[in-house]
Amino acid sequence: MRALVFDGQLKLEDRPKPQFTGEECLVRVLKAGICNTDLEITRGYFGFNGVLGHEFVGVVEASLEATLIGKRVVGEINAACQHCEYCVQNLQRHCPNRTVLGILKRDGAFREYLTLPQQNLHLVPDTVSDEEAVFIEPIAAACEVVDQVEVGPSRSVIILGDGKLGLLIGMVLSQTGCSLTLVGKHANKMNLLSDYPIRQIPLDSAQSLPRVFDMVVEATGSPRGWELALRLVKPRGTLVLKSTFHGHLAFNPAPIVVDEITVIGSRCGRFEPALRLLEEKEIHPTRLLYKTLPLDRGLEAFEMAQMPGVLKVLLQP
Amino acid sequence: MRALVFDGQLKLEDRPKPQFTGEECLVRVLKAGICNTDLEITRGYFGFNGVLGHEFVGVVEASLEATLIGKRVVGEINAACQHCEYCVQNLQRHCPNRTVLGILKRDGAFREYLTLPQQNLHLVPDTVSDEEAVFIEPIAAACEVVDQVEVGPSRSVIILGDGKLGLLIGMVLSQTGCSLTLVGKHANKMNLLSDYPIRQIPLDSAQSLPRVFDMVVEATGSPRGWELALRLVKPRGTLVLKSTFHGHLAFNPAPIVVDEITVIGSRCGRFEPALRLLEEKEIHPTRLLYKTLPLDRGLEAFEMAQMPGVLKVLLQP
Repeated sequence: MRALVFDGQLKLEDRPKPQFTGEECLVRVLKAGICNTDLEITRGYFGFNGVLGHEFVGVVEASLEATLIGKRVVGEINAACQHCEYCVQNLQRHCPNRTVLGILKRDGAFREYLTLPQQNLHLVPDTVSDEEAVFIEPIAAACEVVDQVEVGPSRSVIILGDGKLGLLIGMVLSQTGCSLTLVGKHANKMNLLSDYPIRQIPLDSAQSLPRVFDMVVEATGSPRGWELALRLVKPRGTLVLKSTFHGHLAFNPAPIVVDEITVIGSRCGRFEPALRLLEEKEIHPTRLLYKTLPLDRGLEAFEMAQMPGVLKVLLQP
Repeated sequence: MRALVFDGQLKLEDRPKPQFTGEECLVRVLKAGICNTDLEITRGYFGFNGVLGHEFVGVVEASLEATLIGKRVVGEINAACQHCEYCVQNLQRHCPNRTVLGILKRDGAFREYLTLPQQNLHLVPDTVSDEEAVFIEPIAAACEVVDQVEVGPSRSVIILGDGKLGLLIGMVLSQTGCSLTLVGKHANKMNLLSDYPIRQIPLDSAQSLPRVFDMVVEATGSPRGWELALRLVKPRGTLVLKSTFHGHLAFNPAPIVVDEITVIGSRCGRFEPALRLLEEKEIHPTRLLYKTLPLDRGLEAFEMAQMPGVLKVLLQP
C-alpha cells in the first residue's frame, strides 16, 4: 500500500495495509486534502513522524457494524479514550490520552487505507460529493468558532486572513446573520466569497479601520495579524485565535486587562453542524479546490500546496 | 484644601475646594487607600497628571438628592456618559467617554473633598466600618472575576499572587465553593487567609503542580506569573488576567489554540456584590491594613506602601 510519510523528510513508501482487528473500522481512502498543518509538520513542527494527512473521505471496507460497510464516511481526527473527564463531557477532542490522525501517534490519511474507531465516523449524505466531503474537517474547525462564541445579527465580526481556513470561516460566519468583514491580501481569494454577504477589505486598508468589532477571528497565523486583531477588537470584545502559528508572540497585556478583552483559542470542531451546512448547500468549499493529484505524485502535491495563490490540493490514492 | 498630586513628581499641594454645581455630589473624604495603580502612576504609567487616589469612603456634603446629605458613601470610579452603547448595557465601566477618578481626566480622592456623579455613589451600611468600606473598590474588582466566569463547587481554581488584590480575590472566590489554591511568595501574607478554605502553596513549589486547574487567576503582574498560569491551566480552561502589568509579555500561542484556552482580561467590578459581602462579614479586608497616615504625610505613605511586606496604607485628610 502506497503511503506519504514524514520521518524528518517527506517520502512515498510502501506500507502494509492495515488489518481489520474488530476494534476499529477499516476505511478505503477516496480523497484526502493537504492542510497547512501537514505543511507545518514537514517543516518540523508538532514532532510527528508517520503517515501524514487528516482530511479525508472514504468508504468503509470492514466494521463490526455491518450497516456501515460500503458506506461513504468522513472521520473525526481525535481518537479518544472515552473514559476521562473530557470524554464523559463529550469533549473527546481534548482527551489527554487521544491519538490524532496524521498528527499525533496515529498514521494519517495519505495512504490507501486507514483505520479509525467507529464512533469517529460520520456517514456522508448522498447529496454531498466526495470533493465537498473531504473539506469536512476544516469546515468543522470553522464551525467551532460559533460553538465557542455566540454570534448573531447584533454582532460585528471581522476575519483576518484569506487562506483556506479564513475563507471557510467566512462562509460559516455568514450563516449567523452577523455584520461580517473579511481582511485579506489576495483579491482573487476573497472574491471566491463575492456572493456571500461579506465586506472585503485589503490588508493595507484594514490598518485604518475603527475599533468597532465585537469579535475578531485571527486566521493569518502571523504576528502582524495578532497585532491588528488587538487593535480592532473593541472593549469587552472577543479575539478568536484560530491559527496554530509558531514561535512567540509579544503583546502588551495592559489593554487586554483594561478593556477586558477575551482571547479564545479555537481548534477542531464537531462534524455534525459542518455536515448539515454542506448538505444544505450553504457552504461551497470546492471553490477552494486547486487540483487533485494521485497519491503517487504526493511530493509534487506538497510543493504545489505551498505555491503562492494555491488553496486546496487533494490527493487521490 | 490639601491634595496629593502627581505631575511628573508626587507632591502635596493646596488646591481650591471643589464647588457644588448641582451636577455632581460633593463628598468629604474620610479615608482613602493607596493602590498599586497609584504607585504605577507615580512611575510614569497611565500618563495621568492630577490628584491621585480612587479608593475612598466619604460623607456627602452637597447633593440635589437631599436624602444623601450627611450619608456615608463609596463611589464607583468610572464617570460615564450614560448615553453610549456601553452605558445603555450597564457597562459604564467601559464607556469610551468616561473619566476615571484619580486615573483618567478626573482628580482623585487624595484630597479633602471630591465630586462624583450621584449615580456613582453607594450608601455604606451602618454595620460596615470606614476601614472596611475603603476597600470596596478592590473587592469589587475581585468580584468582577466571578461576574465574568462561572465558578462553583465543581471547579478547581488557583490564584497566583499574594498581594492585596490576590488576597481579596481569595476571600471572594472562597465564597463560591470552588476548590481553591493560593500561590504566593510570602507566608505571612497568605496566612492572613488561614481561616478561609484555601490551600496555600509557596511559589517555588507551584512550579511542580499538575495541570489540573479549570481557572487560573494571574494577580502577580509578572512575566513569571503569566508563564506559570499558562502551565497550570488545563485544556478548555480559563486564565484570568487581573493585574495591569507593564511592558510586553511573550508567549507561544500554539498551546492556547490546541488546548482552546480562554484568556480573559478583568478590571473594575460592580460595587453591589462587594458591599453585600462586606455587610455579611464574609470578606475581612482590614486584615490587609498596615497603617493609616494623615494626608499631610502622603509622601511618606507612598514610600511605606512600596516597602516589602506592606499591604494597604490609608490616607486620612
